[in-house]
Amino acid sequence: MFSRQKVVVTGGAGFIGSHIVDRLVEANASVTVIDNFSTGRESFLNPAATLVRGDLLDQSLVDRAVEGATMVFHLAANADIKDGLKHPRRDVEQNVLATQNVLEAMRKAGVQRIAFSSTGSVYGEPSVFPTPEDAPFPVQTSLYATSKVAAEGLLTSYALGYGFQSWIFRFVSILGPRYTHGHVFDFWRKLRQDPTSLHILGDGRQLKSYCHVSDCVDGIFLAVAAGHDDSGIRIYNIGRDDMLEVNTSVSYICRELGVAPQLTYSGGARGWVGDSPKILLDAARLRRLGWSPKYSLEASVVDTLQYLVQHPEMAPE
Amino acid sequence: MFSRQKVVVTGGAGFIGSHIVDRLVEANASVTVIDNFSTGRESFLNPAATLVRGDLLDQSLVDRAVEGATMVFHLAANADIKDGLKHPRRDVEQNVLATQNVLEAMRKAGVQRIAFSSTGSVYGEPSVFPTPEDAPFPVQTSLYATSKVAAEGLLTSYALGYGFQSWIFRFVSILGPRYTHGHVFDFWRKLRQDPTSLHILGDGRQLKSYCHVSDCVDGIFLAVAAGHDDSGIRIYNIGRDDMLEVNTSVSYICRELGVAPQLTYSGGARGWVGDSPKILLDAARLRRLGWSPKYSLEASVVDTLQYLVQHPEMAPE
Repeated sequence: MFSRQKVVVTGGAGFIGSHIVDRLVEANASVTVIDNFSTGRESFLNPAATLVRGDLLDQSLVDRAVEGATMVFHLAANADIKDGLKHPRRDVEQNVLATQNVLEAMRKAGVQRIAFSSTGSVYGEPSVFPTPEDAPFPVQTSLYATSKVAAEGLLTSYALGYGFQSWIFRFVSILGPRYTHGHVFDFWRKLRQDPTSLHILGDGRQLKSYCHVSDCVDGIFLAVAAGHDDSGIRIYNIGRDDMLEVNTSVSYICRELGVAPQLTYSGGARGWVGDSPKILLDAARLRRLGWSPKYSLEASVVDTLQYLVQHPEMAPE
Repeated sequence: MFSRQKVVVTGGAGFIGSHIVDRLVEANASVTVIDNFSTGRESFLNPAATLVRGDLLDQSLVDRAVEGATMVFHLAANADIKDGLKHPRRDVEQNVLATQNVLEAMRKAGVQRIAFSSTGSVYGEPSVFPTPEDAPFPVQTSLYATSKVAAEGLLTSYALGYGFQSWIFRFVSILGPRYTHGHVFDFWRKLRQDPTSLHILGDGRQLKSYCHVSDCVDGIFLAVAAGHDDSGIRIYNIGRDDMLEVNTSVSYICRELGVAPQLTYSGGARGWVGDSPKILLDAARLRRLGWSPKYSLEASVVDTLQYLVQHPEMAPE
């Protein structure tokens, strides 16, 4: 469906964005990537893509990049949820203002289709599991999720107000090749520095849900291909229907690395302010389109570790 | 509870803000008002208040104003929901960035108590009536409500992350003295220009809920006095438990003005993109604190009209 079309991917040199670029290139799209390489990497970037190096806060740069496109995949974001409180303006700037810049560039250029990476964190600490897209109105517990909720609202307002077609995806933690942040990454990096001990934020019993990036990207393209209703708005959870204790995740990691560290815990049900003790999204809406993730939780963790072990440059010592 | 304390009211020369200032002055607070007079009026400003004239986007001005306060009532906002699409950045700037500036000023000054005027519009087009605070996760239908949801998330994130105590109030349309915008105002202004005809956006059958500003401010002070739970977060709907058709509201207005215009309609269930065909909030949470609004819907409309008739300068012809 993208053959010979210009498609823009913001954050196209990043973890999930670069996988989307790869799929679009396979589909014969003409892909333009906007990336400021804050977390993106040259090595992730598909050589067939046209690179616009720069920041989404630079409106004229975004304007030029979006011109002539048929669709935008907006993946660029500050994705560091844990340290949001150290930089309280960063999420608003990089996730809200940047998203509005993308939408304004699209509006000026007459580009109306956008897929957006939101997060399961928008559910805060849910009262319903698995958590569906219309779960009870959550209290936001992090600046990151707040900024994603705001960006979602911009997309839906532009859909209703300006006729945009928007796809919003609320992800669990995504794992797999090119994974460059998050707690599996942190554990790997710490264990490389010191394989004899590992400090875990929280009590280690937080229940997390993961999804492999390959399954995640499958879901995104399936949903975009399925189109949307008259409102121009489609919102999908993306996540498997099972969970893993952080402790279990740690055991897989240790096994893969062949280490047996002494575990210590910071304690408490949450690893940090805004951490959710339990994450399990209801992806029935996406499954009804035929989505069925191929990687188990264990396979997702193992595949990520194998990638990291093969790419030690991901975290220079 | 505010006697001899410095309390800051943003938007303290505006409609609801000026009523809050009046109550605080009655309670012997030392009130500092920040207002840029974009919609506020000198004549609304309590003479006992200290005025800081300026914009919340001016961080250093906000910093200076907030210093030494014990609490902030953050009422300043762009409240023009209908024309949001004409100025798509305005809500983000004036409602999100401005709110973060207030929170950052508070953080720097060690001020941790904040009451915030959100809106029932955050429920989008609800599926549940009356709509409780934990209604199903809404799709945002306007830039205005999106910006208020974002501001709410900033408040709750600051509560959890920095120990703030926050009170969030989701209002229906508030009526009463000093009312300067909204459809009752628009109808009055149009009928003054031409009492023989009135054009109504939508089919006139939208069901609206109103609340008198006196009852609204009662609710705010009741909730603040009640304190909050350990999370530092309290969210309250403020609205009566009955509704009024726009057509009925128009009939009250015409009766008060002694006019009998020919009515015409733009048609459709919504007056504009983002208009909600039915608004009815569940204020049980606030009622449990003893809140009981004194003004009926009709009395709220009539009191507003009487004020406007006595203050024709509210809309220069």
